[in-house]
Amino acid sequence: MASPALEQLSTNKTYDGQLIKYKFKSAVLGDLIAQFNIFLPANAAQGKVPVLVYLAGLTCTEDNGAQKGGFMRDAAAQGIALLFPDTSPRGAGIEGEDTDWDFGSGAGFYLNATNPKYSKHYKMLTHITEELPQVIEAAGVPIDFKRQSVFGHSMGGHGALTFYLSTLSSKQYRSASAFSPICNPMLAPWGEKAFKGYLAGGIEEARERYDATELIAKTKEPVHILIDYANNFLYQLHPDNFLKAARDAGHDEVQVRVRSHEGYDHSYYFIATFAADHIHFHANFLKA
Amino acid sequence: MASPALEQLSTNKTYDGQLIKYKFKSAVLGDLIAQFNIFLPANAAQGKVPVLVYLAGLTCTEDNGAQKGGFMRDAAAQGIALLFPDTSPRGAGIEGEDTDWDFGSGAGFYLNATNPKYSKHYKMLTHITEELPQVIEAAGVPIDFKRQSVFGHSMGGHGALTFYLSTLSSKQYRSASAFSPICNPMLAPWGEKAFKGYLAGGIEEARERYDATELIAKTKEPVHILIDYANNFLYQLHPDNFLKAARDAGHDEVQVRVRSHEGYDHSYYFIATFAADHIHFHANFLKA
Repeated sequence: MASPALEQLSTNKTYDGQLIKYKFKSAVLGDLIAQFNIFLPANAAQGKVPVLVYLAGLTCTEDNGAQKGGFMRDAAAQGIALLFPDTSPRGAGIEGEDTDWDFGSGAGFYLNATNPKYSKHYKMLTHITEELPQVIEAAGVPIDFKRQSVFGHSMGGHGALTFYLSTLSSKQYRSASAFSPICNPMLAPWGEKAFKGYLAGGIEEARERYDATELIAKTKEPVHILIDYANNFLYQLHPDNFLKAARDAGHDEVQVRVRSHEGYDHSYYFIATFAADHIHFHANFLKA
Repeated sequence: MASPALEQLSTNKTYDGQLIKYKFKSAVLGDLIAQFNIFLPANAAQGKVPVLVYLAGLTCTEDNGAQKGGFMRDAAAQGIALLFPDTSPRGAGIEGEDTDWDFGSGAGFYLNATNPKYSKHYKMLTHITEELPQVIEAAGVPIDFKRQSVFGHSMGGHGALTFYLSTLSSKQYRSASAFSPICNPMLAPWGEKAFKGYLAGGIEEARERYDATELIAKTKEPVHILIDYANNFLYQLHPDNFLKAARDAGHDEVQVRVRSHEGYDHSYYFIATFAADHIHFHANFLKA
């Protein structure tokens, strides 16, 4: 099957590299137009570079992390590309998808919907883990998806942890990190709403595949995970549940590092503060 | 005269400091509500800190520099506060002020209007150079305005250079820097439009006070100026005119450093790339 053509929408030179916005017709998302941003460091001109995928939170698009995350400075210094996907399909035309800020547009929850109402379009899991690498490689963008890690914020932190933990056997991602992730979405209002809406099997369907705390509890292989969280929205995030499950499963503080930060909030001002730490954490594995 | 009360609208912890948004009723702006952001580094808890004022460009508000500039990381490390004013009065109700993106709201041009249509409200020069320091000090915010420098982008770069050069004798600002500033606004469409609209004396009134190239040509004292510019909008910016006038007036490459950057554009992605350089440039003088 021929790969769809990537259309370049804009490019901005930054930190001696290029931030490029693309769009293409996504077969996985039911032939909707999908957009994403890529930051290519200057060294990409000399050959393929490793990539760190950033998954944004509720209400966000492919732009928030690029504009406010503060990631590109250290990614440029480390020679690592950044891939910023969108958080949901856009324009599916499903009744009610634009009504709520925490469900539907801007809130795809990084899963593959099985509820027939959403299953044609809401497949951000396959879109990001399979389709984007295929399309980007086919277009000749100098990224080496064999050296790939993933991080995210809030809903995107949930995505990063579940993408990483559910693909450990295939080594799709070398490491995962998150800023205030939804760690145990089965027990969180945001997660419950998403799972009941998108999944035919509801919360029980989510347990196997889409709950990071459930996944880490079953994980025996060594892992590389860093989590930073601020002390708010804890009833949505449950980092303590994830940490306990990780320790109970034998993952020590080198494998699963969870740090709490007093006084910070859920905004990009928190993310930017610890952005450099996350880039350097992933660089350990991406450049190994 | 009693100082107006500052109302705190929000606060976000970032880089171990605080970004705080305030509003107050501005007498200088004709009793309109003015908003601004302040970043206070952690060391402000131990005493007054120096401050760097950031003047944003056309269409911006007090938020753009705080969200996208990438300034706070190095300001925090250096122990320097940042002050982000708005770019114009808001809600003056003057006919046509919201029509154009390059005149009126979001485009105050950092001057004091003398055209009667605008002179009651459009006084961003006095608002930023006099009123904000008074109001902020009166509220007990731990900033030492005796250690103050100024920088800006595009229209805000024009503001930074003219604020600095027109107050050299009183040493109000220790240094000035700019990202792609409008250096010779008398010869630029943006500048001509602003001067003809805001000033009763039009462009000739601007020559004495509001044109950085005219000002540097007359400046004999040593100066501390850094300019980075990207190679676009040059017909609006004229950095070469400023550089030639500076050299002709005897200011060498230590006093006036002007750097051109190939491939960059007029966006915050350019600003963020060189943000650290500017913070460290000003730190030399603010911490002297």
